Amino acid sequence: MSSSALTRLVADLGDIPVVTDAKIVRRRSRDFFWYSPVLNEALEGKSADLIAAPRDEADVVRIAAACARHRVPLTVRAGGTGNYGQAVPLQGGVLLDITALQTIEWAKPGLLRVGAGAKMSSIDGELQPSGWELRMHPSTKRTATIGGFVAGGSGGIGSVNFGGLREPGNILAARIVTVEEAPRLIELRGDAAQKINRAYGTTGIITALEMPLAPVWNWIDVVVVFDEFIDAVAFGYEAALADGIIKKLLSPITWPLPSYFGALKPFCPEGKSILIAMIAEPSLESFKSLLGGRGTITMEMPTDDGPGKVPLYEYTWNHTTLQVLKSDRSVTYLQCLYPHDRLMQKVAEMREMFAGEVLQHLEFIRFNGRVTCSGLPVVRYTGADRLNEIMRLHEEHEVYIANPHVFTVEDGSRYKRVDADQLGFKHEVDPYGLLNPGKMRSFASTRP
Amino acid sequence: MSSSALTRLVADLGDIPVVTDAKIVRRRSRDFFWYSPVLNEALEGKSADLIAAPRDEADVVRIAAACARHRVPLTVRAGGTGNYGQAVPLQGGVLLDITALQTIEWAKPGLLRVGAGAKMSSIDGELQPSGWELRMHPSTKRTATIGGFVAGGSGGIGSVNFGGLREPGNILAARIVTVEEAPRLIELRGDAAQKINRAYGTTGIITALEMPLAPVWNWIDVVVVFDEFIDAVAFGYEAALADGIIKKLLSPITWPLPSYFGALKPFCPEGKSILIAMIAEPSLESFKSLLGGRGTITMEMPTDDGPGKVPLYEYTWNHTTLQVLKSDRSVTYLQCLYPHDRLMQKVAEMREMFAGEVLQHLEFIRFNGRVTCSGLPVVRYTGADRLNEIMRLHEEHEVYIANPHVFTVEDGSRYKRVDADQLGFKHEVDPYGLLNPGKMRSFASTRP
Repeated sequence: MSSSALTRLVADLGDIPVVTDAKIVRRRSRDFFWYSPVLNEALEGKSADLIAAPRDEADVVRIAAACARHRVPLTVRAGGTGNYGQAVPLQGGVLLDITALQTIEWAKPGLLRVGAGAKMSSIDGELQPSGWELRMHPSTKRTATIGGFVAGGSGGIGSVNFGGLREPGNILAARIVTVEEAPRLIELRGDAAQKINRAYGTTGIITALEMPLAPVWNWIDVVVVFDEFIDAVAFGYEAALADGIIKKLLSPITWPLPSYFGALKPFCPEGKSILIAMIAEPSLESFKSLLGGRGTITMEMPTDDGPGKVPLYEYTWNHTTLQVLKSDRSVTYLQCLYPHDRLMQKVAEMREMFAGEVLQHLEFIRFNGRVTCSGLPVVRYTGADRLNEIMRLHEEHEVYIANPHVFTVEDGSRYKRVDADQLGFKHEVDPYGLLNPGKMRSFASTRP
Repeated sequence: MSSSALTRLVADLGDIPVVTDAKIVRRRSRDFFWYSPVLNEALEGKSADLIAAPRDEADVVRIAAACARHRVPLTVRAGGTGNYGQAVPLQGGVLLDITALQTIEWAKPGLLRVGAGAKMSSIDGELQPSGWELRMHPSTKRTATIGGFVAGGSGGIGSVNFGGLREPGNILAARIVTVEEAPRLIELRGDAAQKINRAYGTTGIITALEMPLAPVWNWIDVVVVFDEFIDAVAFGYEAALADGIIKKLLSPITWPLPSYFGALKPFCPEGKSILIAMIAEPSLESFKSLLGGRGTITMEMPTDDGPGKVPLYEYTWNHTTLQVLKSDRSVTYLQCLYPHDRLMQKVAEMREMFAGEVLQHLEFIRFNGRVTCSGLPVVRYTGADRLNEIMRLHEEHEVYIANPHVFTVEDGSRYKRVDADQLGFKHEVDPYGLLNPGKMRSFASTRP
């Protein structure tokens, strides 16, 4: 972006807060893509030219209009907790910090309407006293925003009950601002809301979301220890299938991953695999009854993700990888979906095929209404070629991969995609292709 | 029972209320076994000799002791809503009316402890204002008791979420009184509670139950109309698998069954099959979005099962059969379990095989953690031989049958059985075989 274009754009923004300090802009242009050595190279040095921080939706409209007028790229960024550079601008321009759009418009039994920039932990903090909470959240709940989760995430803690965001009913509505000279506000309801699901902010600027809620339970963080990883998986599977036992998280993790688990290590005996679980307090007795003598519970305490606390879920999902990366930067990870009808067999196959190289860590989820596992194994990284081979071998064995080492919606999302014409919709709402350009690679603007 | 034995027994009961009027005793000795022409013949005229109506658990202990002392059969009876003669005494003796044991001992978030004789509608009525309700109930909720449901039922409205009573976590504990000269009180917790699950009261007299609860939703009764039954099933299946859509009931019902539906007929167009559903109000929009243009909603109103109201669920489960029997006594019914991995195929197969003779009516449930259907088809009855042949043909095609035309636990329960040593336990708690004798046919007393 030329410095004169920059000046003209800023002039159009009036009193909207703007940051141009290159150091700050570069830092805020990054997310957690460095989990991938491949992306770490590919996205090195990518940065916006300035940050604009709208105070409300009217500011968003003004910024969108200015970007359209001057043909300046615009990339939305909130918590910046993504892992594939979802919020990293590839072509400079404006980084739109929407974290001020955090107002809860209303909440009623089972439903919430909230600004896209609201932190998920704040939402739950507000709602839980009245008996409700978000249905699911990523392991980064304490920093992630609801808009970022919908635009860049897919599921997480709670998906063992509700599936991911792609399942019908898990996003009720979204309001977006289009990027045109005269931006429009569009309310997407029902199926239509899927047009912004995991589109990395390429299909409109999400300003508000209507999300379904779940009744709050008194959740108990539990660590169960097993001699063999496969026994942790087998029991986790039984617990996932036990519809009478209320849970929010079931994560089998193979040894030696727990050896990297800092404050959790006292509960993770040497050489043992673990299952991390969140169980509703009234179901704890049934959970233990189902377990019988097969594993040993080493930790059991109410979930607490308040300030200064480290909830158990921060050792699960992609936080598992982070815990390892804290002391060993030679690893990376994968995202897998196991077939629901051959789960145990495929887990054993992958375990044998990549012994010592792909360290298994599974997350029980519902997918299309079936219980299965998402896998986020930690991979000892020896180069991009081997990484690609590992992914190919998974796919050849019907363990599906959503490649976390690429930055486009098309290449990365795979089994996480929803059935919605996001590409067609992008032509309607972003005719010049200014929204997070390069991320939806099939898009080619037909407008000058 | 000789009249002198009767006199001695009654003398031992002190001031416990007793009914000996033969007409009343005969009437109360019946349940809804007459849905089956086979059972209607087999159980014709079976009756207790007297009714004893304990006022509290101490009375139950006194009656159990007296029955043991005099070797008098004792059959527990509450709402009498069973369909296989569960509460019909085969060998006379005492009919134990436990409906006075209806006190809620305590209720807390997610859990309830209650007398076995409490009506399920009363329990829900008490709990719902505080945000909780029973996880599941039979279609006879307005007259059935919680003890009768656990002892004789298996699942119902709500089982699309939680599975049946046989799933881990759906019965937390039971207190029973043994039938011995000195009766013991035994608390069965966790797995052990399964020893009284669907045992027809043969394994101890249940006096109290600890049951898990579900958060209350604002349920909406919905009727969706389809041109073809198979489309109602296909959509019901999608809705059942949609974990983001909160529901309590999904019942596809083939035409012409809705033509028998009395007050519901205005919502059931001629020649059309229907899906009856209970959907949480905040999920209604998503439910309609999923439906798209595939079916037509003809009714939509908040569930109301208060006095004088007929909730939609009284057209589902075995109430479907009852609605038909009201005007056509030539029919009976079956209980089927469809295999979860070939559901649509098997539904179509059975439909074709028994066109016009077996009128399909399915109930979506979870079973072992998988979504599938229980089938309660209405059968045009032409004789016991053909009925047996229809059942055999179902089983040959891997549609499992829990025969509702037999009265023993072993013959009738089949896929509804739990993995618990009920027979062994009966020897411990009912050594003389006095509890509902003849119902657990593998039992032979080793005590004189």
